[in-house]
Amino acid sequence: MSYRAPVKDMLFCMTELAGLEQIGQLPGFEDASVDTAEAVLDECARFNESVVAPLNRTGDLEPSSWDAGTVRTTPGFRQAFRQFAEGGWQGLQHPTEFGGQNLPKTIGAACTEMLNSANLSFALCPLLTDGAIEALLTAGTDEQRALYLPKMISGEWTGTMNLTEPQAGSDLALVRTRAEPQGDGSYKLFGTKIFITYGEHDMAANIVHFVLARIAGAPEGVKGISLFVVPKFLVGADGALGERNDVHCVSIEHKLGIKASPTAVLQFGDHGGAIGHLVGAENRGLEYMFIMMNAARYAVGVQGIAVAERSYQKAAAYARERVQSRPVDGSVPGSATIVHHPDVRRMLMTMRAYTEGARAMAIVAAAAFDVAHHDSDPETRKRSQAFYEFMVPLVKGFSTEMSVEVASLGIQVHGGMGFIEETGAAQYFRDSRILPIYEGTTAIQANDLVGRKTGRDGGQTARSIATEIARTEAALAPRDSAAARAMATRLAASRADFEAVANFVVERVRSDPNAVFAGSVPYLMLAGYTVAGWQMARALIAAEDTLAAGRGDAAFLRAKVATAWFYAEHLLTRTPALRAAIVDGGASVMALDNDSF
Amino acid sequence: MSYRAPVKDMLFCMTELAGLEQIGQLPGFEDASVDTAEAVLDECARFNESVVAPLNRTGDLEPSSWDAGTVRTTPGFRQAFRQFAEGGWQGLQHPTEFGGQNLPKTIGAACTEMLNSANLSFALCPLLTDGAIEALLTAGTDEQRALYLPKMISGEWTGTMNLTEPQAGSDLALVRTRAEPQGDGSYKLFGTKIFITYGEHDMAANIVHFVLARIAGAPEGVKGISLFVVPKFLVGADGALGERNDVHCVSIEHKLGIKASPTAVLQFGDHGGAIGHLVGAENRGLEYMFIMMNAARYAVGVQGIAVAERSYQKAAAYARERVQSRPVDGSVPGSATIVHHPDVRRMLMTMRAYTEGARAMAIVAAAAFDVAHHDSDPETRKRSQAFYEFMVPLVKGFSTEMSVEVASLGIQVHGGMGFIEETGAAQYFRDSRILPIYEGTTAIQANDLVGRKTGRDGGQTARSIATEIARTEAALAPRDSAAARAMATRLAASRADFEAVANFVVERVRSDPNAVFAGSVPYLMLAGYTVAGWQMARALIAAEDTLAAGRGDAAFLRAKVATAWFYAEHLLTRTPALRAAIVDGGASVMALDNDSF
Repeated sequence: MSYRAPVKDMLFCMTELAGLEQIGQLPGFEDASVDTAEAVLDECARFNESVVAPLNRTGDLEPSSWDAGTVRTTPGFRQAFRQFAEGGWQGLQHPTEFGGQNLPKTIGAACTEMLNSANLSFALCPLLTDGAIEALLTAGTDEQRALYLPKMISGEWTGTMNLTEPQAGSDLALVRTRAEPQGDGSYKLFGTKIFITYGEHDMAANIVHFVLARIAGAPEGVKGISLFVVPKFLVGADGALGERNDVHCVSIEHKLGIKASPTAVLQFGDHGGAIGHLVGAENRGLEYMFIMMNAARYAVGVQGIAVAERSYQKAAAYARERVQSRPVDGSVPGSATIVHHPDVRRMLMTMRAYTEGARAMAIVAAAAFDVAHHDSDPETRKRSQAFYEFMVPLVKGFSTEMSVEVASLGIQVHGGMGFIEETGAAQYFRDSRILPIYEGTTAIQANDLVGRKTGRDGGQTARSIATEIARTEAALAPRDSAAARAMATRLAASRADFEAVANFVVERVRSDPNAVFAGSVPYLMLAGYTVAGWQMARALIAAEDTLAAGRGDAAFLRAKVATAWFYAEHLLTRTPALRAAIVDGGASVMALDNDSF
Repeated sequence: MSYRAPVKDMLFCMTELAGLEQIGQLPGFEDASVDTAEAVLDECARFNESVVAPLNRTGDLEPSSWDAGTVRTTPGFRQAFRQFAEGGWQGLQHPTEFGGQNLPKTIGAACTEMLNSANLSFALCPLLTDGAIEALLTAGTDEQRALYLPKMISGEWTGTMNLTEPQAGSDLALVRTRAEPQGDGSYKLFGTKIFITYGEHDMAANIVHFVLARIAGAPEGVKGISLFVVPKFLVGADGALGERNDVHCVSIEHKLGIKASPTAVLQFGDHGGAIGHLVGAENRGLEYMFIMMNAARYAVGVQGIAVAERSYQKAAAYARERVQSRPVDGSVPGSATIVHHPDVRRMLMTMRAYTEGARAMAIVAAAAFDVAHHDSDPETRKRSQAFYEFMVPLVKGFSTEMSVEVASLGIQVHGGMGFIEETGAAQYFRDSRILPIYEGTTAIQANDLVGRKTGRDGGQTARSIATEIARTEAALAPRDSAAARAMATRLAASRADFEAVANFVVERVRSDPNAVFAGSVPYLMLAGYTVAGWQMARALIAAEDTLAAGRGDAAFLRAKVATAWFYAEHLLTRTPALRAAIVDGGASVMALDNDSF
């Protein structure tokens, strides 16, 4: 089997770190017990391991292809997507009112990870559809919801997000696609959108495009952008499919990775105008798009964890089999499997610690999302929402940056074989490379972290996270295992680095924006290392306690302690360098003349 | 133009850091003046920019292809290789006795960088031929030299290194290819070699394979391996080409990158035996191979610098053109080129500082090589040789690891466009990924650094390097520019980290080999950051002094100061994390059960 879902670790994160039991007691989540989670995860694992994962390499070898406006997806994708839809997986986290299962994000996030580990390219279609569903739930009229949501949640139709244009990537102020009111409540759209994931394909009967465009006379910049729903086939009031709309796929991109996922150039209105309807209020498109994007950003962070997990599994399997050289400690008389060699272990442990840390952070963030949306106490909701929003750039930025590093180590563990495409390790490296870019580059995430998430509340959320971390340090203090002692020391140091940098950001963001933004990505990474490390510290405590109580799977728990220990010594130790570069390094970033680059 | 050779920086490194003037006074190098260097570099730049660089993308799109035992290289390669040979570039550093130009490695290294920046895949053919020439110069008989060297140095024939077998990668003790003496001084070879770069191609009239094999009855392990010369076409005593030898290319690999470079599986002796001749003494093959490998390892390090340079140039060009978003400091009223944005600058400066630091380190190492081989004083030769040998794993390991990070940043600077293959940034990312693997993985380099280069002399070479670095710190101390002050602080801290870790290695390598080898790659990286940073410190001093004297190219010199400053704050600051991970982190690397991976 090419992929085995880490169900045990996912359940550990949910129950020991994310408080799944409490989430199962929130209004609306009464069915979300630990038993439910276990059953869903097992079923999800079975489906992804057996149906979706085997198509991953196929997708790399036989990517989506374009011919005269139509896109043929990788052989097998269509059928697998039908099974995905029939299994109810698209609706996992969506309202029962429209056919969904209304499961908490805490559980849904693990399912998202499995689907993405199994097949990043395949998983992108549901990922984008989720975002589109979110936009309709937030801003759609009752009629729009009734028309689109049941079909999208059932997987009959899929959704897309149309933001980017050739001149407007990170900078959506430059969007030029225009929407002309037709007097009957509809609009005609004209323009070109690029980088549209699953913008055209053959896996569903209809594709529902959500498109940013300007209504004539709208203000310049981001305050003049509206959101439109533009289906590939027009939809009658009865839900029946009508005429082909004037949106056409004129090409798809030839990419470094995720080759099976068609990345479309869409032309709107070349034959009279693409018919669309406004979603929500005029000129508030960016706001709605941010809702979709926040969901998508979190999910892309999970993609990072997913590809890191699969890359780790492949490398670990190779290291357990490949025989080469004698161990340096003489523990084996002749050549041994390379998992004996300290540097191979260092690489595998780096991959593993990163992945487990990022997963713990993501699942804990998902739990905060659930609490923020379901808790009966407004104060708790507000606090959880602030925490979740702080986490989104970390989950997205940190997990995706680490995924590239992990996939690169995955190749290195394989030696020369890693560079041969048939081995498969290289695909994860290629696939992962898009993750720090799409749905907002790491710099865009970092701007969000600096501006909206740290600067705006004067560092309050950051400080409250630091206070929570200090509580975990206090819980570590009386422990005497080598792992706990190392973690206590390193976590305290990283938390201090995090606090110092958050203060630096708050104090200097107005007076010296260049210095602060020069350190924005290092700040994001520092916060990611610290928060993921904090979760590993909590995991270490839980694992040691469970072991001491003689409960649980001892091998799993011992591995968790060892991995947390490694995280402390090898990943938390990276924060001082980042702090120094941020606090002292701003001027040197700006020192070179623009012309000298 | 897709590539512009950084001739100015290369000359700066040679004259200001590597002492080219003194090298031009060594016996045998009388012609190697600064003027010569300038003329050679200019000519080399012209050739590589206009002839070789344009074939880089072609090679990615139309890789070498295999058909029934023959390999057809990328269209244009054959002709370009002929021009390369006619220009005398293959013989640049080789003895005039055999038709070479006998230029110092200090100059040759810069030419190697240009060729590799222009086209990594193309450059591999001469790179391997250089190694083969080295082996013959070291261990070949007079007859063998006379037979092969003139043709290889003129570029009529090329050379290969045949080490790897399916079961023997990093571990050459496992080599199984066997050589049977024929009684007439020749041998017949039987076996399979894999990963043979340019093991078969159509660019030269003959291919001279250097092959590791065991003579019947030889001892087990590495002490029973001999080196053989096995030409593709047998060579008569008069140098005329004879029969086709029994070595055949049965396939070439489908790789992540360097696709134009054919990576051959060679089958020796399937039709009666491949005729070969012993090179040097029986069972000393590994020793000779190490000579080839040391040359090749240094050159692969230069490949890292080369691909980093080209990746930087592409990213910088894009950043100077792409307009997106307003600068955070309000310095431009509307959208500006992205080179204005602090995070883009941070990425570009990281790429630039890494590249310039690694280049300076490599050229200084090359100068030590030249001194070690040409100085009249035996003590100076010995000291320079020890320094050079210490540098080889750093040049190879550090420069190649950094090249992957740099090429990854090169994609990131491009945003979504970076992920599109047509842009070209992705090719550097794919190409670079082999560099930390072939000619000895980074772990193999790190083992060499720990064992042969640090442990064996009790840390003496490491300490003498630290002493030299401290001298540079003393020279920085009285300077009052912000750049010099930052450099003084950071360099002192990194030098202390380097010393502490070298001591740790010396003290613990026998008593706790697992801990030391768990930190071997971090030690290599720490040493690389420190030594390259030291060269940037020297560069900063030289640049400030030259500026103060009102000489030189002011824009270039100011850029050098800015880049060194950035290096101090953003790259030297990484060493404490590595020190902590090495000194404290060994146990956590070994903590997980082998079965739990």
